[in-house]
Amino acid sequence: MNNINFSKLNGLVPAVIQDYASLQVLMVGFMNEEAFNKTRKEGKVTFFSRSKNRLWTKGETSGNFLYVKEITTDCDNDAILIKAEPAGPVCHTGKKSCFGEEETKGFFYKLEQIIDQRIKDDV
Amino acid sequence: MNNINFSKLNGLVPAVIQDYASLQVLMVGFMNEEAFNKTRKEGKVTFFSRSKNRLWTKGETSGNFLYVKEITTDCDNDAILIKAEPAGPVCHTGKKSCFGEEETKGFFYKLEQIIDQRIKDDV
Repeated sequence: MNNINFSKLNGLVPAVIQDYASLQVLMVGFMNEEAFNKTRKEGKVTFFSRSKNRLWTKGETSGNFLYVKEITTDCDNDAILIKAEPAGPVCHTGKKSCFGEEETKGFFYKLEQIIDQRIKDDV
Repeated sequence: MNNINFSKLNGLVPAVIQDYASLQVLMVGFMNEEAFNKTRKEGKVTFFSRSKNRLWTKGETSGNFLYVKEITTDCDNDAILIKAEPAGPVCHTGKKSCFGEEETKGFFYKLEQIIDQRIKDDV
């Protein structure tokens, strides 16, 4: 992974959290370098919260952590994409995603997930 | 759609562009209110480019426009998610996504897409 450019936005870069299995976008937050390093080290997504003005590990109160599966950065190193496994609903409204969509994918998507998982598990 | 809060980040909000069919995240940019309104009006994604310091319609040079399929905002109205149909490779490197992933989904995902499309087309 390339070095992230934290200089463009007062030390922050946007971080998109995507469900690693369904590919649904779950939320968007910001990370500073400390949040990014903590996320990589602990394997749970930590943002820099602009409203709290401190590091904020998603799930620190609710227990609904976002477990990191894959981290990628974009071509100019100023955005982060994290595929994660959510421990529960991501949004404070109780919905799966902060973008309010319920999962709309059908049978074959779910079947593909199960097949992928079984290949990984070598069942 | 709720009113977007453009006040948090000097008039900008992050906008995530996701392939409407494969759900791959293609790129992340920023929009100001003018870019957002232009995007809604024209049906093609326009960002506010921080490097160019002006509105930037993705594809204005390459022709690889991002045709808007669906726009949603998040629970606190400070991030935008756009499902789009890309006219060609999104990244300036020639890759499909600025996050450098090639599509990894298998046969069933593609089949599901075809079925979805045929249902929509009422074939």
